[in-house]
Amino acid sequence: MKKHNFSAGPCILPQEVLKKSAEAVIDFNGLGLSLIEISHRSKDFVDVMEKARSLVKELLNLPDGYSVLFLQGGASLEFLMTPYNLLKEGGKAAYIDTGVWAAKAVKEAKLLGDIEVIASSKDKVYNYIPKNYTIPTNVDYVHCTSNNTIYGTQIKEFPKTDSLLVCDMSSDIFSRVLDFSKFDLIYAGAQKNMGPAGTTLVVVKDEILGKTGRTIPAMLDYQSHIKADSMFNTPAVFPVYVSMLTLEWIKGLGGIQAIEKLNDAKAELLYNEIDRNPHFKGFAKNEDRSLMNVTFNLTNEADKEAFDKLWNAAGISGIKGHRSVGGYRASIYNAMPIESVKILVDAMQQLEKQFS
Amino acid sequence: MKKHNFSAGPCILPQEVLKKSAEAVIDFNGLGLSLIEISHRSKDFVDVMEKARSLVKELLNLPDGYSVLFLQGGASLEFLMTPYNLLKEGGKAAYIDTGVWAAKAVKEAKLLGDIEVIASSKDKVYNYIPKNYTIPTNVDYVHCTSNNTIYGTQIKEFPKTDSLLVCDMSSDIFSRVLDFSKFDLIYAGAQKNMGPAGTTLVVVKDEILGKTGRTIPAMLDYQSHIKADSMFNTPAVFPVYVSMLTLEWIKGLGGIQAIEKLNDAKAELLYNEIDRNPHFKGFAKNEDRSLMNVTFNLTNEADKEAFDKLWNAAGISGIKGHRSVGGYRASIYNAMPIESVKILVDAMQQLEKQFS
Repeated sequence: MKKHNFSAGPCILPQEVLKKSAEAVIDFNGLGLSLIEISHRSKDFVDVMEKARSLVKELLNLPDGYSVLFLQGGASLEFLMTPYNLLKEGGKAAYIDTGVWAAKAVKEAKLLGDIEVIASSKDKVYNYIPKNYTIPTNVDYVHCTSNNTIYGTQIKEFPKTDSLLVCDMSSDIFSRVLDFSKFDLIYAGAQKNMGPAGTTLVVVKDEILGKTGRTIPAMLDYQSHIKADSMFNTPAVFPVYVSMLTLEWIKGLGGIQAIEKLNDAKAELLYNEIDRNPHFKGFAKNEDRSLMNVTFNLTNEADKEAFDKLWNAAGISGIKGHRSVGGYRASIYNAMPIESVKILVDAMQQLEKQFS
Repeated sequence: MKKHNFSAGPCILPQEVLKKSAEAVIDFNGLGLSLIEISHRSKDFVDVMEKARSLVKELLNLPDGYSVLFLQGGASLEFLMTPYNLLKEGGKAAYIDTGVWAAKAVKEAKLLGDIEVIASSKDKVYNYIPKNYTIPTNVDYVHCTSNNTIYGTQIKEFPKTDSLLVCDMSSDIFSRVLDFSKFDLIYAGAQKNMGPAGTTLVVVKDEILGKTGRTIPAMLDYQSHIKADSMFNTPAVFPVYVSMLTLEWIKGLGGIQAIEKLNDAKAELLYNEIDRNPHFKGFAKNEDRSLMNVTFNLTNEADKEAFDKLWNAAGISGIKGHRSVGGYRASIYNAMPIESVKILVDAMQQLEKQFS
């Protein structure tokens, strides 16, 4: 039976990317060798890394002056690298707390200096994006999280600041058109819209680096990685390759403009059903709803067994909500076809019929 | 033509491991989903992680009291994590400098405290392992590198110390029998004998942790990772899976005891030819020769074109020496069959015949 994979991450990837990746594990570029047993300094892999970096610049429409890196350690290590690279000795930074991942970023940054949480939606289990907060003018940077996987919220209007703007875009990068040149540092774990777990994308404006007065450990210093063309040490070869293929796939579809339209259509279909169907209610505040992670609950918990049977029978997987929110979470990342969303909507409508 | 892959790393992996890995990228465990698109918290992947950790304990014959982790960042990040976790505030550590990687470990550790290089073979381009050094008694730990990929040297007798013993075993772990319980911390980037680039094995004695008085950033704290069963954040799913398969393969061959015999036979064959054949000379001091990386030069540089033609024609790849040493380096890791070593020896003998 065909599976419909709504997993929050690691998550669905394009079928053609999976096919090419599997082939490369056996024989890469017709070399007679596997992708994962050749030197990362070989021309064949250096080409992969360069292509991945250049596709990021192209897809995000970045002006000159940005470096693109593929590092290890996930967003969690970026929580530490951000203040190491941007927070001046004795300096201060402002964070917007929109979920447990944002809160983890705060916790790590506090080890290095004065961190002010200028807004938080913790009071309502993070079901909305805070607005109308005041950004202090004396901060080294402002940190936000563009999409909150667990709660299904997404920032539509980014903070306006004269300080540096930093954004964790792990769960919605490459899913919608933004003016990426407004950001000074963007990072994203690959395992949502970009590729498999094990590599982390970093996009950083070169001119902001080297100004903190800190001695930065080599592996945590963006400048080490930039100087070495993202090969300061052995990169995660397979995750970088699969990311490169996924970026090629996005470009082939027509870039972020095209994929955003598809994402809008999928989200509209599912949110419309949640709002229409009396058996369901959305979790996130309407105006802050994520186009990537759709969180919803049953209006009546007694329907649980019946609904779980329906979506299981339809081949749907990965829609259990996070334990802190409960209910359901349908993650509809770039690679999710609208047909799979229709299958889920069908299951929701069948539940309604069963009880009518 | 069949390829004989002597690459220093990322390097040759067992064919059956490559085959199973490629299959899992298409359909993992018959789930109808790819390994790289399921949640790392799913039972199927948690089983992989647990199996990988338990195979390490079994193969290294570790007593109780050790934790096994699969982290990101390579040995390079371990250079920083080691002092963060083991070097007391105001403490001191001793390092043995056997190559540029050992020197990088020294450089990172110096950011956190007083580091004494107690022995170095830098004076002879690291072509030997220093001996007869004195280990200070007042150090928090002693750090060594078991095998030096670039130079083809390998420690046969490890430092004897009452302090903690730390070893970077990136390029020879699982290749020879050692009393691993003599070590307090072992780390190894996967991309030699264990799997593809992108995951790092850490084996640490639990009782040594939490004693430095330092505040350690969460991602650099072994205790964060131990508490979370090596899933403090999303692990590098595919590299961990391939590592698990490779560990299963080693176990299937009869464990490290069995693989050591094969490695001995391969190394003997190649070193015997280097010593016998007047066209070649070894680089590393005989008593310190590595069983993993065999470094050698032509006695007459004028033979280069002829020899390069011979090994290229034989389907050999990856034997160019590191730029700091020159000549050739044949890496004969666990997965390298003796038949491939024979092909290289044949090419060396053909060179001799051409000039006789």
